[in-house]
Amino acid sequence: MARYAYVNGRYVPHDEGAVHIEDRGFQFADGVYEVIPIVDDCMIDAGPHLDRLDRSLSEMSITPPMSRKVLELVMDELIARNSVSDGLIYLQVTRGVAPRDHKFPKGIQPSIVMTTKRVKFLGQKKLSDGVKVITIPDIRWTRCDIKTVSLLPNCMGKTEAFEAGAYEAWQVDRDGYVTEGTSSNAWIVTADNKLLTRPATHDILRGITRQSLLRIAEEEGLSFEERAFTVEEARTAREAFVSSATSFVTPVVQVDDHVIANGNPGSLSCRLQGWYLDYCAGLKRSA
Amino acid sequence: MARYAYVNGRYVPHDEGAVHIEDRGFQFADGVYEVIPIVDDCMIDAGPHLDRLDRSLSEMSITPPMSRKVLELVMDELIARNSVSDGLIYLQVTRGVAPRDHKFPKGIQPSIVMTTKRVKFLGQKKLSDGVKVITIPDIRWTRCDIKTVSLLPNCMGKTEAFEAGAYEAWQVDRDGYVTEGTSSNAWIVTADNKLLTRPATHDILRGITRQSLLRIAEEEGLSFEERAFTVEEARTAREAFVSSATSFVTPVVQVDDHVIANGNPGSLSCRLQGWYLDYCAGLKRSA
Repeated sequence: MARYAYVNGRYVPHDEGAVHIEDRGFQFADGVYEVIPIVDDCMIDAGPHLDRLDRSLSEMSITPPMSRKVLELVMDELIARNSVSDGLIYLQVTRGVAPRDHKFPKGIQPSIVMTTKRVKFLGQKKLSDGVKVITIPDIRWTRCDIKTVSLLPNCMGKTEAFEAGAYEAWQVDRDGYVTEGTSSNAWIVTADNKLLTRPATHDILRGITRQSLLRIAEEEGLSFEERAFTVEEARTAREAFVSSATSFVTPVVQVDDHVIANGNPGSLSCRLQGWYLDYCAGLKRSA
Repeated sequence: MARYAYVNGRYVPHDEGAVHIEDRGFQFADGVYEVIPIVDDCMIDAGPHLDRLDRSLSEMSITPPMSRKVLELVMDELIARNSVSDGLIYLQVTRGVAPRDHKFPKGIQPSIVMTTKRVKFLGQKKLSDGVKVITIPDIRWTRCDIKTVSLLPNCMGKTEAFEAGAYEAWQVDRDGYVTEGTSSNAWIVTADNKLLTRPATHDILRGITRQSLLRIAEEEGLSFEERAFTVEEARTAREAFVSSATSFVTPVVQVDDHVIANGNPGSLSCRLQGWYLDYCAGLKRSA
């Protein structure tokens, strides 16, 4: 079956999707993006993802390429054309094409690209078995709250994790505190069963899944706190997990060489995962 | 006259130059680049620029797309096709096209793009009159020594400078020391006539023009030191200037609201500019 991409107003075969060599996304990383998971024919938290896209565009002074309504229509159309029941839709907006010059050009048309990918998220082994993470220095810029395509350090970190046989790398600030994973937020559960994750300042991305989990924690009456934790706290935590749009709640069973608790996914992590999947299923029912 | 770009093995009309939407340069800023100035039909310091390109590729574990010899042939051909006597050639190499995934894919073909631009550098007003710079916090990542296309903070800084009526923004580390401009290295001359520029650690790009100027300073027996200087030292400096492949030696006559000395380009800056232009002319004669 043909797979389409949406590129600047046209649905084109995925392989033929192209942008100009002077697109500022290509020359300057001057663009932002979102990844929205699709589970059982339902986009998860599309609203919050598009709200965050709006915020990223605003922070970067990039003109939105189209209204929210039209954006949603295009997303629906692309997902339908590509028959994606489970997977993700990727949206990237860049400042547009202009003769190369560092300073933001005025009055150009932003570029927009959308692709989809089929992935069966539920039932993945990592969700039941848990994963290993390593810790690495956080070498990124100071505006990690903006979801830009300036992802080179994230790619380097993810590659380092992969080469170490790990699923993710937790980045550590110069004071020894974990910021977040290269493509996920970091969480631990303390000895007294308190859920910890770093506050959403400029140091980390305000994950949409992270926000949903905090809401769920509140609703379920869990003890939780938004505060930074050290590598040592992570290694000796009772439980640990990562959250992201495409890893949902994935238990962490090892941090560097330190096995977390007994090496099995923690019970609170598993309950949170269950609650989150219930939440996703509920989104479909109410759609 | 038609203007060509070189894109992955083909010379194409500039307007039609395109890369795939899953080129990692577009989605992850996973690429490196060089800008080589052309003055009076002569590429300036092409060798050192291509050496640095090799280093950037090596640091990023990106396979060189072609041998140095072939690269030089393509550059010459593109410059000839576009009849560029004065201007620049821009080279960008990215890791290549692969399904979106943070970690570096193995065994893919790197992408290479080259463009040229005609610019008459010599005689520009800024070279004789000097420019204003502002100072801003350095918000970049910690590997500014690699010349990657992860340039978003540089673009933001350059835009801020432009909006403040300045030519460049000098980025300042958290300890109050100037790192470099958003697309140039920063220099001052102290009260006792010593030339200062920051050492080329991971904090700044090892500018090719910067290296040539240090060599010239040595040859001319100038007093110079590679050490970081503060914003206060910059504002009260005897002279200041920026260096880059396309701004050569451009005198700075104002830092933020502080006029440097009497507001005219400094005499040492002007002499360095002259020596550097002589050096460029010499490259042509010896070519």
